[in-house]
Amino acid sequence: MAGGAVDALYLRPGANLTYLTGIRRQRPHATDTNAYADWIEGAYIGPERLVLVAPRMGSEFFLHQARGKPWVSDVRVVLEGEDPARVMREVLHRIAPGARRVAVDDRAWVPMVEALHAAGFQLVLASGLIDPLRMIKTADELERMRRTAAVADAVYAAVLKVLREGVRELDVAHEIDYQFAQHGADYPAFVTGVRFTRPDSDRLHTIRHSQRRLAPGDAITFDFGCVYEEYCSDFGRTAFLGSPPAEVAAMLEAVVEAQRAAMAAMRAGQITAEEADRTARDVLDEAGYGDYFTHRLGHGIGVTVHEPPYLETGDRTVLQEGMTFTVEPSSRVPNGYACRVEDVVVVTPGGAVPLTQAPRTLAVIE
Amino acid sequence: MAGGAVDALYLRPGANLTYLTGIRRQRPHATDTNAYADWIEGAYIGPERLVLVAPRMGSEFFLHQARGKPWVSDVRVVLEGEDPARVMREVLHRIAPGARRVAVDDRAWVPMVEALHAAGFQLVLASGLIDPLRMIKTADELERMRRTAAVADAVYAAVLKVLREGVRELDVAHEIDYQFAQHGADYPAFVTGVRFTRPDSDRLHTIRHSQRRLAPGDAITFDFGCVYEEYCSDFGRTAFLGSPPAEVAAMLEAVVEAQRAAMAAMRAGQITAEEADRTARDVLDEAGYGDYFTHRLGHGIGVTVHEPPYLETGDRTVLQEGMTFTVEPSSRVPNGYACRVEDVVVVTPGGAVPLTQAPRTLAVIE
Repeated sequence: MAGGAVDALYLRPGANLTYLTGIRRQRPHATDTNAYADWIEGAYIGPERLVLVAPRMGSEFFLHQARGKPWVSDVRVVLEGEDPARVMREVLHRIAPGARRVAVDDRAWVPMVEALHAAGFQLVLASGLIDPLRMIKTADELERMRRTAAVADAVYAAVLKVLREGVRELDVAHEIDYQFAQHGADYPAFVTGVRFTRPDSDRLHTIRHSQRRLAPGDAITFDFGCVYEEYCSDFGRTAFLGSPPAEVAAMLEAVVEAQRAAMAAMRAGQITAEEADRTARDVLDEAGYGDYFTHRLGHGIGVTVHEPPYLETGDRTVLQEGMTFTVEPSSRVPNGYACRVEDVVVVTPGGAVPLTQAPRTLAVIE
Repeated sequence: MAGGAVDALYLRPGANLTYLTGIRRQRPHATDTNAYADWIEGAYIGPERLVLVAPRMGSEFFLHQARGKPWVSDVRVVLEGEDPARVMREVLHRIAPGARRVAVDDRAWVPMVEALHAAGFQLVLASGLIDPLRMIKTADELERMRRTAAVADAVYAAVLKVLREGVRELDVAHEIDYQFAQHGADYPAFVTGVRFTRPDSDRLHTIRHSQRRLAPGDAITFDFGCVYEEYCSDFGRTAFLGSPPAEVAAMLEAVVEAQRAAMAAMRAGQITAEEADRTARDVLDEAGYGDYFTHRLGHGIGVTVHEPPYLETGDRTVLQEGMTFTVEPSSRVPNGYACRVEDVVVVTPGGAVPLTQAPRTLAVIE
């Protein structure tokens, strides 16, 4: 248990649990769902035992996931009417008798945190133990990252075919989600982004995919990715309906050059996360688009779409071989055109190597 | 502040915040996303002031949501490099000087909970204060519940048209999600459920919508709902491709009768949540399907798809006028046919009145 720093580890169903144990995740619901005792749900891991705790309603999933995994000692199904706090304490005692320090998922629920405090446990954030492991991908993880990236490439090729005058943003977004399913992905890793922009655009804060219809003269920016074999892709490109004006071509060229420069600079052991961000930002500053690049250059990616390190000011992590990042410079003129490009890359001694193959040039739709 | 029980309230972006303030939610992502200082994000509410705290990256949404809401005193944007715990303490001091007891969302993040403890605050679960308010819907809320229910009815009518031999479960599920968007919904309230069952079915634990193709002799069960004007629908019906055997017709008849009996019994002030569950269970027990009804009869529904009270053993809440529930008995033979029906209802003195209108009879597809 991390060199004696903690006696036990509590993980909710989710990315850390999948990463450490192979117990898969279900697609989360968009609004809160509940089951009796759901706040103690998850894995309780001691030095030698792992017990899954599952509310009776929904427990079939965990019983199924435990099959063929000898490292799962038991699935403790909680019946309606049992005292969840008592079950939690009993299970912790089983997996780590005398435990004092428990590491918990950073998004464990408050009733669980308060019950642990009430039982006298000291809490530690699980991220401090697990994030360093997750940052460096193994060969097997990189193979999975390549396969989920290949799905993104294939979906992009398919979705370009539906771009025509009159199609709505929501039509294109739903086609992307449908194509993910067609290609065997589990579900979108994040809400699929499709934007039609033009010189008089004005819409940044919508709740839902819009009814806006594609018209000649629109730039189309994509931001999408899926969960495939539990690993995430995250992909961006720019297309144009009709004959692109010089300003769009020039803007995308600068964005692609910023990405290229950052990727070339991202050599293992030779650069920090914030320096990589700076490299791309310098290119866009020089080309006059710096004010339109308003987010970080990228983020670590793996079993979740965003994970440390982050390519942003303040993150001084030295990039290491086997780290995977998005590299996603963009330029968005307020109420005007937007251009973006995004690839997932793996850091190597010679620079960052993209896992996606689709051309970065403007996809011009006639 | 709830009769002096708490000095301040901290809510993450989400259902409680939407319910209390009208600040809308964005559709959540399926895997974790992160931004600098995201663990202090949300609303800090004192006796006279409400301050929104937003990480710089993504703050446009909250600045936009704050417009036209004079009850939002300020949007405090947190810049990269600021100490989040310090910002949190400063904002709490601004909205409730000298505060000691803070109510927090039950799913606030652990770093926030630990930082509040470290700063000497006592914590209370926000659910204890807000759930009782959310249980009883106002006239305006009931109008919204009717409109989101009407979307479910319309989507059901549309999706029946795509049921034909050879269509896959994933095709039908994506059509439902697409129809939600067509009808102006924001997004599905939960993962859309479509199941094809037959006497040799065997599949309960999948991660994704399946490739299984519809064949004559399949029963098709639906379980879907959307978020529309921030309120949730949740709807279920059963269809059949081809000529249904007597066993399916009889099973659905028992399920519908169980629902009808429960709805008739759900008179305001006259019955508890667990007694309503028992009423439906008795009907299915009597008809010989009791062992196949493995979940609770229903759940409260409003700004989230599941919320108290719950129609299950152990919930002794007396039903009151204006409460809204799902009533969703089902019968699922292991590896065999499944039948289900589900409506959202509002409790009245004369019983529960459904908000959805679609016929509950088996939809036979020729």
